[in-house]
Amino acid sequence: DLKQGKFRITGDFTLNISSGPDERLYKAADRFLRRLDGRTGLFFKQGIISQANPQPADDPKLFIITKKKGKIELNEDESYRVLISPEKITLESENDIGALRGMETIIQLLSADDQGYYFPAVEINDKPRFPWRGLMLDVARHYLPMDVLKRNLDAMAAVKMNVLHFHLSDDQGWRVESNAYPKLHQLASDGLYYTQSEIKELVNYAADRGIRVMPEFDLPGHATAILVAYPEFGSMPESYTLVRNAGIFDATLDPTKGKTYQFLDKLFTEMLSLFPDEYIHIGGDENKGKHWKANPQIQAFMKKNNIKNAFELQTYFNNNLLKTINKLNKKMMGWEEILQPGLSKNTIIHSWLGRESLYRAASQGYQTVLSHGYYIDLLYPASDHYTNDPLPDSSERLEKEKKYKLTPEQEKLILGGEATMWSELVTPFTVDSRIWPRTAAIAERLWSPSSVKDVDDMYRRLEIVSVRLEELGLCHIKNRDVILRNLANGGDISALKILVEVIEPYKEYTRDPRGYLYKTYSPYTLMADAASADASSARIFRNRVFSYLQNPNENDFAALNSALFKWRDNHDGFLVTMKVSPVLKNMEGLSKKLSVISSIGLEALDFIGKKSAASQIWYDKNSEVIKSIKDDTEAKKNSNKIFEDERTEIMIVDAVQDLVDAANPEAAKKRREKEKIEKELVEKNREENKNEADGGH
Amino acid sequence: DLKQGKFRITGDFTLNISSGPDERLYKAADRFLRRLDGRTGLFFKQGIISQANPQPADDPKLFIITKKKGKIELNEDESYRVLISPEKITLESENDIGALRGMETIIQLLSADDQGYYFPAVEINDKPRFPWRGLMLDVARHYLPMDVLKRNLDAMAAVKMNVLHFHLSDDQGWRVESNAYPKLHQLASDGLYYTQSEIKELVNYAADRGIRVMPEFDLPGHATAILVAYPEFGSMPESYTLVRNAGIFDATLDPTKGKTYQFLDKLFTEMLSLFPDEYIHIGGDENKGKHWKANPQIQAFMKKNNIKNAFELQTYFNNNLLKTINKLNKKMMGWEEILQPGLSKNTIIHSWLGRESLYRAASQGYQTVLSHGYYIDLLYPASDHYTNDPLPDSSERLEKEKKYKLTPEQEKLILGGEATMWSELVTPFTVDSRIWPRTAAIAERLWSPSSVKDVDDMYRRLEIVSVRLEELGLCHIKNRDVILRNLANGGDISALKILVEVIEPYKEYTRDPRGYLYKTYSPYTLMADAASADASSARIFRNRVFSYLQNPNENDFAALNSALFKWRDNHDGFLVTMKVSPVLKNMEGLSKKLSVISSIGLEALDFIGKKSAASQIWYDKNSEVIKSIKDDTEAKKNSNKIFEDERTEIMIVDAVQDLVDAANPEAAKKRREKEKIEKELVEKNREENKNEADGGH
Repeated sequence: DLKQGKFRITGDFTLNISSGPDERLYKAADRFLRRLDGRTGLFFKQGIISQANPQPADDPKLFIITKKKGKIELNEDESYRVLISPEKITLESENDIGALRGMETIIQLLSADDQGYYFPAVEINDKPRFPWRGLMLDVARHYLPMDVLKRNLDAMAAVKMNVLHFHLSDDQGWRVESNAYPKLHQLASDGLYYTQSEIKELVNYAADRGIRVMPEFDLPGHATAILVAYPEFGSMPESYTLVRNAGIFDATLDPTKGKTYQFLDKLFTEMLSLFPDEYIHIGGDENKGKHWKANPQIQAFMKKNNIKNAFELQTYFNNNLLKTINKLNKKMMGWEEILQPGLSKNTIIHSWLGRESLYRAASQGYQTVLSHGYYIDLLYPASDHYTNDPLPDSSERLEKEKKYKLTPEQEKLILGGEATMWSELVTPFTVDSRIWPRTAAIAERLWSPSSVKDVDDMYRRLEIVSVRLEELGLCHIKNRDVILRNLANGGDISALKILVEVIEPYKEYTRDPRGYLYKTYSPYTLMADAASADASSARIFRNRVFSYLQNPNENDFAALNSALFKWRDNHDGFLVTMKVSPVLKNMEGLSKKLSVISSIGLEALDFIGKKSAASQIWYDKNSEVIKSIKDDTEAKKNSNKIFEDERTEIMIVDAVQDLVDAANPEAAKKRREKEKIEKELVEKNREENKNEADGGH
Repeated sequence: DLKQGKFRITGDFTLNISSGPDERLYKAADRFLRRLDGRTGLFFKQGIISQANPQPADDPKLFIITKKKGKIELNEDESYRVLISPEKITLESENDIGALRGMETIIQLLSADDQGYYFPAVEINDKPRFPWRGLMLDVARHYLPMDVLKRNLDAMAAVKMNVLHFHLSDDQGWRVESNAYPKLHQLASDGLYYTQSEIKELVNYAADRGIRVMPEFDLPGHATAILVAYPEFGSMPESYTLVRNAGIFDATLDPTKGKTYQFLDKLFTEMLSLFPDEYIHIGGDENKGKHWKANPQIQAFMKKNNIKNAFELQTYFNNNLLKTINKLNKKMMGWEEILQPGLSKNTIIHSWLGRESLYRAASQGYQTVLSHGYYIDLLYPASDHYTNDPLPDSSERLEKEKKYKLTPEQEKLILGGEATMWSELVTPFTVDSRIWPRTAAIAERLWSPSSVKDVDDMYRRLEIVSVRLEELGLCHIKNRDVILRNLANGGDISALKILVEVIEPYKEYTRDPRGYLYKTYSPYTLMADAASADASSARIFRNRVFSYLQNPNENDFAALNSALFKWRDNHDGFLVTMKVSPVLKNMEGLSKKLSVISSIGLEALDFIGKKSAASQIWYDKNSEVIKSIKDDTEAKKNSNKIFEDERTEIMIVDAVQDLVDAANPEAAKKRREKEKIEKELVEKNREENKNEADGGH
């Protein structure tokens, strides 16, 4: 509740922790104070805060009152209460984790007016809607150094996320030092792995921010790296090599041999000693059992044990693995493929192929976590993720979801969600820009009530959050210009900046449709890496076209006109920079396309502004140009070439078509009807020729 | 030698290491290949290179031929030979360190034309002029995390530097984990220290780049942190607390007690086991012996042992410490204060108070290294450092230097130099911008012949190097906008960008003249932290004023005019952003000053362009305004307030005065004569009232 009045912040601002449950809270309070000082530049007098040196202030302004030390585990209380009056601020919580969450809320409330900085008077009683609000980091496809992990943990804490799901092994690498099986990190990591002391450091760093760290060792598929080190546990007697590209591979552990389980028992005993979290994620996805089918001994084993298919064999594997996991007092989580008859009920099902599986799992009594719709690596806009509610009003569920009529108890089994950052196409340098700021929208979805879902307001706030994340060292904004400066080879980057804000990398799996265009060692230093989801200029333009066509007005007209002029003329500047930088030749076509499309937009806008309908000839000609540009983009998405438009696309094409349509609504109506028929034909053909387009997971 | 022809780079570019002296060379070659691919975007086919996986190419283009593994020690051979023809590239060296240096040269040669990327055909035979080319990082005043150290090591390697001098202890902190004396890191680091495994990792990382790591533990002064942990070794029986500000403090080890040396013996035995380098820097600077004078027992000891003063007592201390150092097969280095009678001859003298001491040390037979003139923390322009030659032609030496008539053998004792990055006023976030790109100019001074000293050409090349350093993760460019975005509080940063490129932080020790304006925990997130040495717009403007006044021409006129217009009008934009960001109020005065001074410049330029002399009244009025601005700046430099202009100054003031002078040369001549007389008076007064302005070191 917003109240009357403002709490003014001055250099005398001090805070006081009235009880001292743990050093963690003192350190968090110190970080809070330094961030506030860094934003306001007030040079707070209060020095470094620690339990040994709490520096109790004479006249504290912020009182932090907590009852005990919180546990870093699922379902721990994260609630807090903030009361801001013009005189003082009180933050109360059951435990220090709640206090951490409350401090993030307070710093978000920082406001400014003519007289300076203040916090508005409010009373907030807050707690999360879901207890599981995670980010999965895939450090197997591309290793992420400790500093990248740490700054992302800081960002997670800032948006109140509480689970780092750490995808530590896959076909491309094994990333943890093992004393029990040292060949894992020696032979299967290219030297890029975390030492055991680094893992401990990371777990502590996360715990200091109220974040659990759950490891994933993907089994029995996605196991090339393990089999590079120890081929004797593989389903085929071959020599394995580390995978350098993306996709689904066949290397699979042999589930029929006792020695496989001895290996895993010893390995898990070592690995899980590093991770205090109750849960271990065993992956379990995308195992097609190809090597199982090809191995006569495995086939014989299945026959002998009445195991009918690969699914049952994998369940057999999982249940054997579960013995080790239970022995270690841990619980199992796995991707939704593991949900097969006979699976132990205290396993958590991780939904990635569709939201439906969330309801299927819950209906069968399993706890479950949603990642379908939170695949941030696929570069969909934040709005898509934001509107993806794990548990929407039952009226808003899909038909196939509605058939699972969940009881309130079953709904409680839906624990929350996880943004998943698969790293085939990112490096430590670009990964932040794939995670942030969009993951903040997911974090809000998982924390706030279902009813908070205004997309425009989300985008407005997301821009603020995005800049604030920079204070924690996140590189999602600043690394873009670095890429552009490299691309410009000493030339002017301004044309590249304009271009990059209107393009996005090909989405879903079309940037690397078959997984072999890019290798782990490819250069991720190009335009597609500078571009990101939610290209800001394009999004603003599209929104403005929409509002202008709804309600023509001079402001929107002028803004659209100026944007289109800028884009039309940008190609000249691009060519100047290209002259000194041959690498830009790959983008020449796209830059030219932007110019062409913008010229069309300008003409259309002119007709609309003058309220004179464009001719049919004009309409047809320009619609044809737009269509050819779109067709060209679609063709390139399926092509085998890295260089074509550097696998990026212009995000204003449809909006310009909308302008063209508005310049001759009659012609537009006809065109749309015609296209609808054509589209249905194409769809029909596609259904018939459907081949599995695998994503890599 | 530049030759005919170009070696064209395509995606088929591959390299081959014909002998395999060490994994280090393979890793370096891999980094070289990835950087080249990152710049050219050619998607090289050659995969990850390692000794286990050398991937010998069918048709290699670059042949790397070395004879042996180089040693990471002083005076190791770093020479190499590069031969580029249109068909192939050969890099030959005595050892792999030379090959590392040669690869940096090759990648610097990357060029582009209409047809794409190429290396020009050349033959280069290269070796360093000085064997000691260092960067000192002070991690005591502000701790620098491992990733900051690593990226700076990468940058050092890129500019062929070979010594990281690691200042690990001071009054503000002790930064290495100690098992022998754990209270050092537990009580005297605020939790910010390197574990022993991190130190080893860092030493290996440096060695992989051909860089030595020399630790410094500053003794017997600058010892507050040590005495916080172990006060029993202090010269006064007091309880010490970690210092939070800058300056020179009194905490000093007690050199009269045997237990002090037992402590140091055990401590150094542990610490030096972490650093394989032959040298250990013992600091030894700025000990004024205040506590020695105040302690009657120490005074009695001195009397008894016929030790006449603090200098002799310190030499006594050093020679005792040297026993431990010798026992550990190490050699000692120390700041120039340790050069006292009786000092062991195999000690290296580190010159910081003046270049003269370099010659004094060499004339006495000591090896010596120059840091005076390379204090990059003081924010002087790159040109100052670049023209600071350790060993200029004897004709170019100062009179006081000439009196040391060094023999050729003595000149060889001058080993090189070190840029020194004292960290009182920097954080991990800003430190790169204080080190780079200026340190590249120092690196060139120490590598290249004395005759290479064209300042304009250095600046031209420095801009290129600066952008290239970004590919190694350096943050010196990109973090500026982050600070501005924080300062703008969501507002537009364009006015701040224009302003920051024409201002610099107060230089030398005037940003914090007495060492107490800033604490270690102050916010270094403000305009003075975004500003840096060598403000680019200002430097370009000054050069252009100079060239225009030498030779009036339309191009320069137009450029000067446009810059001045931009600066004059920038204040309006500044005020718009300030409306949403109260922290900017501290900069309002300076922004306004820039507007005023630019208006004056515009008027002056108008007179000059029209070739009509300005009136005496106009001249006097405007010179008076400029003088008042300069006086105001000087007064603020001595003031007690952090907020005044945020301790930054405008760097075009003198150049605008030059324009004003050119608008009425007669009046200018009179003014200058008058000022000269006044200045002499002031100087005379200053000499008389001189008080020691201590820098902090």
